[in-house]
Amino acid sequence: MSSHRNLPYHVPMSDKTPLSVLGICGSLRSQSYNRALLRAAQTLSSPDMHITLHELHEIPLYNDDVYAQGAPDGVVRFRQAIAAADALLISAPEYNYSISGVLKNALDWASRSPNPPLDGKPLGLMGCSPGPHGTARGQMATRQVCIFTNMVPLNKPELLVPKAHEKFDKEGNLTDEDTRQRLGAFLAAFSQHARRWLGRP
Amino acid sequence: MSSHRNLPYHVPMSDKTPLSVLGICGSLRSQSYNRALLRAAQTLSSPDMHITLHELHEIPLYNDDVYAQGAPDGVVRFRQAIAAADALLISAPEYNYSISGVLKNALDWASRSPNPPLDGKPLGLMGCSPGPHGTARGQMATRQVCIFTNMVPLNKPELLVPKAHEKFDKEGNLTDEDTRQRLGAFLAAFSQHARRWLGRP
Amino acid sequence: MSSHRNLPYHVPMSDKTPLSVLGICGSLRSQSYNRALLRAAQTLSSPDMHITLHELHEIPLYNDDVYAQGAPDGVVRFRQAIAAADALLISAPEYNYSISGVLKNALDWASRSPNPPLDGKPLGLMGCSPGPHGTARGQMATRQVCIFTNMVPLNKPELLVPKAHEKFDKEGNLTDEDTRQRLGAFLAAFSQHARRWLGRP
Amino acid sequence: MSSHRNLPYHVPMSDKTPLSVLGICGSLRSQSYNRALLRAAQTLSSPDMHITLHELHEIPLYNDDVYAQGAPDGVVRFRQAIAAADALLISAPEYNYSISGVLKNALDWASRSPNPPLDGKPLGLMGCSPGPHGTARGQMATRQVCIFTNMVPLNKPELLVPKAHEKFDKEGNLTDEDTRQRLGAFLAAFSQHARRWLGRP
Repeated sequence: MSSHRNLPYHVPMSDKTPLSVLGICGSLRSQSYNRALLRAAQTLSSPDMHITLHELHEIPLYNDDVYAQGAPDGVVRFRQAIAAADALLISAPEYNYSISGVLKNALDWASRSPNPPLDGKPLGLMGCSPGPHGTARGQMATRQVCIFTNMVPLNKPELLVPKAHEKFDKEGNLTDEDTRQRLGAFLAAFSQHARRWLGRP
Repeated sequence: MSSHRNLPYHVPMSDKTPLSVLGICGSLRSQSYNRALLRAAQTLSSPDMHITLHELHEIPLYNDDVYAQGAPDGVVRFRQAIAAADALLISAPEYNYSISGVLKNALDWASRSPNPPLDGKPLGLMGCSPGPHGTARGQMATRQVCIFTNMVPLNKPELLVPKAHEKFDKEGNLTDEDTRQRLGAFLAAFSQHARRWLGRP
Repeated sequence: MSSHRNLPYHVPMSDKTPLSVLGICGSLRSQSYNRALLRAAQTLSSPDMHITLHELHEIPLYNDDVYAQGAPDGVVRFRQAIAAADALLISAPEYNYSISGVLKNALDWASRSPNPPLDGKPLGLMGCSPGPHGTARGQMATRQVCIFTNMVPLNKPELLVPKAHEKFDKEGNLTDEDTRQRLGAFLAAFSQHARRWLGRP
Repeated sequence: MSSHRNLPYHVPMSDKTPLSVLGICGSLRSQSYNRALLRAAQTLSSPDMHITLHELHEIPLYNDDVYAQGAPDGVVRFRQAIAAADALLISAPEYNYSISGVLKNALDWASRSPNPPLDGKPLGLMGCSPGPHGTARGQMATRQVCIFTNMVPLNKPELLVPKAHEKFDKEGNLTDEDTRQRLGAFLAAFSQHARRWLGRP
């Protein structure tokens, strides 16, 4: 009788202190494939990583005049959630060969001084798209945002999910076996990357 | 007695049908230097170009679920204003070495099918920043958005306004002589670029 | 008995003065798929476009000290060929998610003052790769080079040829029907783009 | 009587095993400011870092046909020098708002399998230019090359040296005090970054 019986795909046991990872979906759509991918990551990640999702619906458009009066509540919560996490995992669509405005706007709020919580965070980037290139260009644009904000993104393997509508079932479960395997390998590499950077091997 | 007497800087007369240009400020801040730069452009452009400003305050965060119900009023007005213009002139800050989330979000709405109004529009890009590099990197990121949306940006000269706080007075008037000259040259090149592309020399 | 009988795919007749297009392969490899794609373009383009290929083998690494003594012969010939062309058609591999060093080096020589021949040239970008994304990122990096050099690249449609080894036969003939159709559509759009920019509709 | 008397600017003593750093100049020009900046880095770096320079003159244009026969001697030496180093320090010009062809070509050779020596190397990026923006855009393009090659670049502080001709004397000594201070701070951050990544604090 193995206690592993009901565990999904190759989830290794671990006695490490789990990494706390904040999962961020770069789309507001309720049926977003990127949110579904984050949910799959929650299931497929090993016990050495605990992924919590944070939604961007309550983050208004960035406005310096507003910020001068104090960050809105939704922004405060977002910044606190980032600060409390060891690492960030972004799954985002590609709009117009670039980062989604929704995600960029949230990162703009999170990047503001004082004490920008993005500073020094290890980052994993994933993305789903209906087309054949799976957010290749959107991820490049998002990496450009990592420099000034001082995030430390995993280089490889990349996780692109092209033709996303063929990879999930109607309930948003990731059913494509190849993508599940790639997601598992990505999460393992992301964990290793974050632990190396954080000095918590 | 020249009727040119009170005209600012080298504004040539013209009997061409004026280009209608939509000016878009990539910041919501009331005292934005980028809005002030657009106002200076309204003053310094020659009579062959008529620049109208459109604000982004009423454009909500992009959400596919909302769009499926129909574009919000602010978005409809933005798309109509773009469609009615011959060319676009964007003046935008650089946030985190990239495009501002506010501007990207607006372009995401404007890019949606059917009949995306950005398609085929000549574009001029300008930008003010407090730092020394004047949105050099933000403009690069914005150009990346032009490909899929099929905008046709002017290549040269670029208009970067570094250390913007030293270039405008307290009322937001562009007082720096060198910047005024460069803005004039930029607008002349932009007009020529747009007319060439539109076949209206 | 149609005189069109032996003509390849949908080649329309034309009484326009043909555009002279310089085809540049961004790889030195003798069996390069990108060169094979340029050869296919020579066959599939309509009579309104005449494509000549120029090789980069004789262009040395850029060195200011050498340039101060005068451009090497291979560089002089490359610049003359560019100057004589109405438009440029680059087919290039993607190396390390970016432009190939070989192509960038050639463009660096071509960009030097005085009289840089790249200035104002309409440009078409294509690319073959063994992987699934067909130079999507390499083309983005190449577009970045167009700004300062003032080339005017076609935005859409893009021509990416992923899994190139499956698209050509052993003699380097483009045999994949879908790619042939996309190449034909790309060339038609490129011709239209170049003619519009050059004012030669 | 301090034994620090003749030491340049704030060089701290250290009993750490020095990092071996390979300095790479992205220009072949004999009087290159970027090479001069690397020489200044050799002088200003603390004893915990030992910087050796490697020139790119003997690296031919990349050609797959040549590589299939075995890497040329200059390439072998370059790859060995990279493999032997703990970290890389690139100082490079910006050509056409992007990476120099010379540097990209060298990185293309270094990236080839098997055993690409770039894999996992911490990287510092610096750059001199005659213009006002000090390779801001060229560094962005070089960072794009880090993803697939799996280099780990320092995010901040950036080291841009604009108007380089005003910062060095005729012998190529870095004489500008502000740049010397910024270079020192950059090298300290680079050392810390590399040691953190390599697990050698």
